[in-house]
Amino acid sequence: MEVQSIIFPNGMPLQCGEVIAPLEVAYQTYGTLSPKRDNAIVICHAFTGDQFVASPHPVTGKPGWWSRMVGPGLPIDTERFFVICTNVLGGCMGTTGPTTMRAGTDKPWGKDFPPITMHDIVAAQVKVIDHFGIEQLFAVIGGSMGGMQTLTWATDYAERVFAAMPIATSPFQSAQNIAFNEVSRQAIYADPDWHGGDYQAHGVIPARGLAVARMVGHITYLSEEALTRKFGREIRPGTMPAPNSPLAALPFGGMFQVESYLQYQGSNFTRRFDAHSYLTISRAMDFFDLGSEHGGNLAAAFQQVRTRFCVVSFSSDWLFPTAQSRMLARAINQAGGHVSFVEIESDRGHDAFLLEEPDFDRTVRGFLNGAARHAGLPEGRDDHAV
Amino acid sequence: MEVQSIIFPNGMPLQCGEVIAPLEVAYQTYGTLSPKRDNAIVICHAFTGDQFVASPHPVTGKPGWWSRMVGPGLPIDTERFFVICTNVLGGCMGTTGPTTMRAGTDKPWGKDFPPITMHDIVAAQVKVIDHFGIEQLFAVIGGSMGGMQTLTWATDYAERVFAAMPIATSPFQSAQNIAFNEVSRQAIYADPDWHGGDYQAHGVIPARGLAVARMVGHITYLSEEALTRKFGREIRPGTMPAPNSPLAALPFGGMFQVESYLQYQGSNFTRRFDAHSYLTISRAMDFFDLGSEHGGNLAAAFQQVRTRFCVVSFSSDWLFPTAQSRMLARAINQAGGHVSFVEIESDRGHDAFLLEEPDFDRTVRGFLNGAARHAGLPEGRDDHAV
Repeated sequence: MEVQSIIFPNGMPLQCGEVIAPLEVAYQTYGTLSPKRDNAIVICHAFTGDQFVASPHPVTGKPGWWSRMVGPGLPIDTERFFVICTNVLGGCMGTTGPTTMRAGTDKPWGKDFPPITMHDIVAAQVKVIDHFGIEQLFAVIGGSMGGMQTLTWATDYAERVFAAMPIATSPFQSAQNIAFNEVSRQAIYADPDWHGGDYQAHGVIPARGLAVARMVGHITYLSEEALTRKFGREIRPGTMPAPNSPLAALPFGGMFQVESYLQYQGSNFTRRFDAHSYLTISRAMDFFDLGSEHGGNLAAAFQQVRTRFCVVSFSSDWLFPTAQSRMLARAINQAGGHVSFVEIESDRGHDAFLLEEPDFDRTVRGFLNGAARHAGLPEGRDDHAV
Repeated sequence: MEVQSIIFPNGMPLQCGEVIAPLEVAYQTYGTLSPKRDNAIVICHAFTGDQFVASPHPVTGKPGWWSRMVGPGLPIDTERFFVICTNVLGGCMGTTGPTTMRAGTDKPWGKDFPPITMHDIVAAQVKVIDHFGIEQLFAVIGGSMGGMQTLTWATDYAERVFAAMPIATSPFQSAQNIAFNEVSRQAIYADPDWHGGDYQAHGVIPARGLAVARMVGHITYLSEEALTRKFGREIRPGTMPAPNSPLAALPFGGMFQVESYLQYQGSNFTRRFDAHSYLTISRAMDFFDLGSEHGGNLAAAFQQVRTRFCVVSFSSDWLFPTAQSRMLARAINQAGGHVSFVEIESDRGHDAFLLEEPDFDRTVRGFLNGAARHAGLPEGRDDHAV
């Protein structure tokens, strides 16, 4: 697997007190950094995402996960902006994580990879930005767990973020989301190939448990409406009783399309993702709670922040419901910050931020154009188009 | 385990074509059957429920699952009505199911237990009603999968059901619910103690997989609000870093209360429920689709039905959302049936039907009193109280 990356030999200290050294951070860039280094946008990827925002995934060969949003002339316009996306700390696409060989040993970190937080994940990204000599980012943008990173950027490094777009996210991980993550973790632990976390030493992966974990996650990314429209109660061809049988309406021994879809999603996922990475990153999400880190006062997190925010939610997102985005927007407002808040009408659930949603595209383009004017960046070719 | 049951030596034919013989149906009754045998109410239990509606569970010792609803002077008043609840076919509390020894063999049915449907489940209940010499039930009542049985009663045996109360249910199993069930099934299959379904022969149970299945289910029974109110992001005592540590806000190595609660629910469940029963009954739910069994016309299912219906949903139930109950009520109405529809405001999710909800209690009491007057039953002591 060929990836761009930077190695920091001295590594970095983590919030838990341990030090990761050396630290490698893998990344992709799109567009060109301006001579003033004032046009950089960091895109933060979601839980099981990666740095291949707008270029094909080296394992699956699929197009970049946000290639409809990031590119020449697209809402995040790479003719105008320099886009950087790093694989998160703890990930498995080139950045140091549980699959990385641990220095001074002949084994990967595996289950000994330390617990990490959003602060650690963002601190690793800061090292890359420093490496590029960028003082202030024009913007940080991210959906879902990418939104948690965006909020962490804007509060831990306020002076380095001109504009921020937390999308389909929340200022804290809810009890329900912790609960779903815990189901996923227990499914991994229950796999016979888990071996108490030592699966790497046994040359296996807990593929079935990881697949179940992914299946749980996948349902939460969609909406009931989306699943109904996509599959409804359709039966997979070839698994139904004869059409004249009185059982034709019932898939005895058969399978619903939605089941085979989920199974495919689950088993496919295990080709590209590591179980320890899954556990490490899901834990980092569960830890995230911006308010409690500021004495239970979410507004206090934004007291000194002059970043311009655009908070975006999707109406049918039940993983990160609109109420949580509204709470965030209210807190920024209460702290005297700049914030606009948009709820996009969509029936496609949490995943809507990755899909064709024209209102969302217009929101991203409009916010970036407006912020670019305030930042004094040269005008874009579509600056007046929206 | 001591249970009341009836054995039907000739068994019963199933919709799939197989015959289960002998058939044992375990049940509990509360109250007294009137001399005219016109005061019987069948209560249908939910997926993992049982016949112990209002008496302690013989395995867990816990009070009956609806003891706040069923009893002397309660909304389903056992001073007035004769209540019958049977353990569903395929269950594991005394009714023939996968844990039952298969006649002519020295093994339980196990993975060879045939696929069953709601029609089969209700047909087994009909045998018990026949045994009691009851021609027409005063009412059939059930929540969740109990509601699917209620609808099956009212459509397969319309002339035998005077009134019906489908609660927190749907005329079909949605794609999302099939998806959650499939995750649960895959979790069971992934357990090393599953042994291709032959766990009984190995003297083990796939307890971890079954626990994960239960954890998934349990989340879907609650609401985000209920989980937040009950647990929020609370940490289990004794698992937190020292309070003065900079990590005090983060449960490194610790555990959220919601996780330990779910784990407890999961592992507790495996003491009282069989994995094959779980698979068999979850499949029966997935098969359920009243509309498609009537050529895609849900109203057609109710064309000849003169049963009085009261359809009840709960506003925060996302497993069986109000829209599905509304669709049901509309179809009955379209078929010229008697139907009232009540959405109870509650933020406790699907489980609300089992919990203290005064509006719901009033609805049940009011509907039964009204129906009893129409049925010409003697007045109850609280007939004018509501």
